[in-house]
This record gives sequence, C-alpha cells and structure tokens, in this order.
Amino acid sequence: MNHLPQAITDAIESLCDLPGVGTRSAERLVFHLLRNSSGVEEKIGNSLLNLKKNIKECSECHNYCDLDTCAICQSLNRENKTICIVESPLDLLAIEKTHEFSGKYHVLHGVLSPLNRVGAEDLRLDSLFNRVQNNPQLEEIIIATSGTIESEATAMFINENLNKIFSGKISRLARGIPLGGDLDYLDAGTLSKAMSERRIF
Amino acid sequence: MNHLPQAITDAIESLCDLPGVGTRSAERLVFHLLRNSSGVEEKIGNSLLNLKKNIKECSECHNYCDLDTCAICQSLNRENKTICIVESPLDLLAIEKTHEFSGKYHVLHGVLSPLNRVGAEDLRLDSLFNRVQNNPQLEEIIIATSGTIESEATAMFINENLNKIFSGKISRLARGIPLGGDLDYLDAGTLSKAMSERRIF
Repeated sequence: MNHLPQAITDAIESLCDLPGVGTRSAERLVFHLLRNSSGVEEKIGNSLLNLKKNIKECSECHNYCDLDTCAICQSLNRENKTICIVESPLDLLAIEKTHEFSGKYHVLHGVLSPLNRVGAEDLRLDSLFNRVQNNPQLEEIIIATSGTIESEATAMFINENLNKIFSGKISRLARGIPLGGDLDYLDAGTLSKAMSERRIF
Repeated sequence: MNHLPQAITDAIESLCDLPGVGTRSAERLVFHLLRNSSGVEEKIGNSLLNLKKNIKECSECHNYCDLDTCAICQSLNRENKTICIVESPLDLLAIEKTHEFSGKYHVLHGVLSPLNRVGAEDLRLDSLFNRVQNNPQLEEIIIATSGTIESEATAMFINENLNKIFSGKISRLARGIPLGGDLDYLDAGTLSKAMSERRIF
C-alpha cells in the first residue's frame, strides 16, 4: 500500500478503527468517496467532528442529549409511572422504534462485568435509585436488559436492590421465539424458555 | 428518531451515504463512536476532510497521487516494457497486492456503458494510445478488466484500437475457477470458460 498518497492511506487506516470495517472495506469506502464528487466525505467528516461537541448525558435518564435533560424526559406526553431500564442509548432507540412504550427510560451505559472491571459504581445506578425513591407516581419498573449472561446478572442485581426500596411491579422483557424465527435454528436455551413460559392461546 | 440530538442525527444520516451502510449500521457506528473516548471520530473526520485536498490523477497512468506522477510511474524498479490496463485505482491496488506484476499501469476510471452515458471519450484512452505510441520499449499490454459484460465490451474495444497502433503482445487475465472455489457453486459461464481454456497439467 506504500505507493498510495498519504491522504488516502490515512483515510483507510482511520476507517479501519470502526467496528466491522476491515482494510478491504475501508479501501472500498475510500475509493468510493474519491470517485464521487458529491461532497459526501466532507459531510461525513464535518458531522463526525461535530459529533461529540455538544453531547452530554441527560441529568435524569442518562440518555445522550444536547440540553440538560433529553427530549423524552422533557416530554409531557410520556408517563411518569413507568421507568424502563436499558443498557445503552442504542437499546433505548430500539425500544422507541416499536412505539409500544410511553413511559420514561433509564440508561445504565453498560452491564456488570467483573472481567472487564465494570462494577456497580460504573453504571448509573445511584441516580436510578434516587429517581425511584423520589417518584411517588412510579408504578412499574421494566428491566429491559439483553439476553447475555452479563446482562442477566445485571438484571438480577438491579432487581434485588430495587426490591429493597420499591414496592411496585418490577418486570422484564419476555423471552421466547423471535418473530419469523425458525424453531430448528433456535438454541436450546431460548426454546426451553419459550416452552416453560408458554402462554394460553 | 426525532428525540435524538441533532449532532447524532446528522452523523447517522451522513454515514448512510456510504455504500453498504444502512440506517441501522450507521446508528451502531455512531453510538460506538459516542461510547468510545479514544478520539476515533476526530481521526476519521479529519482524514475524510483532508482526503481530496491534494489528490489528483497521475499525468502518466491516471492513478491517484499527490504529486505530478505517481510512485509507481516514478519508480526505477518498474519495467517499462509492460502496461497493465485496469478499470479503477482499486483494481490496481488488488493487482499490486499479488506482488506478481512489475510493469506499469494505466487506469481507465470506468468502463464503456451506453446506459450510463459513459463513452470512449470519458475513459483515459487518448493518453493510453499516446503512451503506447511513444514507448518503443513496450512489449506487452495486459487488459486486466473485470468479468462483467460492460468490462468485456470495453476490453474488446480497447483491443481493437490497440491492434491498429501496436504490434506487440496484447493479453488478458485468465478466466477460470477461483482458488478455493467449489465447482457446484460456480456459474455455467465461468465453468465453460474454465473447461474450454483448460491447461495441460
């Protein structure tokens, strides 16, 4: 690659830092940008340089926002009686897209992971417990963590601690067959969950 | 997505302009960048903004370079007796990686495509014919176009025109079974080429 101009090598190397982008994909992207004259590379370059400038965590739910509190926490259309705990802003986004949830969120920014030295103090748990204790309208807390072992452990830990300070409903997402999923491709764990937690038709 | 801060929405939308990146991948990339504090987004942003600043086409072979002629055309280690014609700088890069070719290149920057209104005048053909006519050392021209119909047509067109001005060898890449390829997954066209152009063991 040493015969390439420095600017091209730099762009290829920097794109390789993105998850899921290897040298070959990076090369394709860069040469695509070079071939096109629509200014896409400037648009992306500027938007990435501006990305973190004004972004902070919402003081309520810890979602990303550019004001003190995020649009969801500010909204008058969102119910105060439910809090949905998610691991990351991306998970929040995924739930928002279902249009099924009209309460508020709490973003942990991680899961308990002793191997990666992530402990309870690294998650946004103190502010969660504060919110729970200071919200008399609160009726239900949904723990919407993922299906990995670390996520499960985090959910159990949060559930235990919430039980001490909250007498309302604490729920979690249903586990079972994904829509469009094929039974014979499903792992045994999911299938056994789907069986044991089956619902009346 | 309207509850997201503008800077995040901008970054997601701009990344969607990359080939092969949909909204979901763009969201994952942007939230990955937000989560990481290693300055990757600045590195990528700056490298993309600098990408096209100094890049021009080599006056000899039309590869991308930041000087008047590219590193390959300047190199004293490359033979002048062979020219390899490729469609794009990316194809040149692919051939360079094989370390099998020690001649010089000529980059067409496209293929003949009447549907997309790309004609012979849009390719770097005049300068190719000039190079061929002004290089008495030239022994062989390799037409290393791809396997699509448009590429084949372009190769045939170039071959016809080169025949008028060049009496040396004009060759093309071998067609056949790709290394590691499975016979029963191969299309009939490739297989029939591989059969008709078979070589003695």
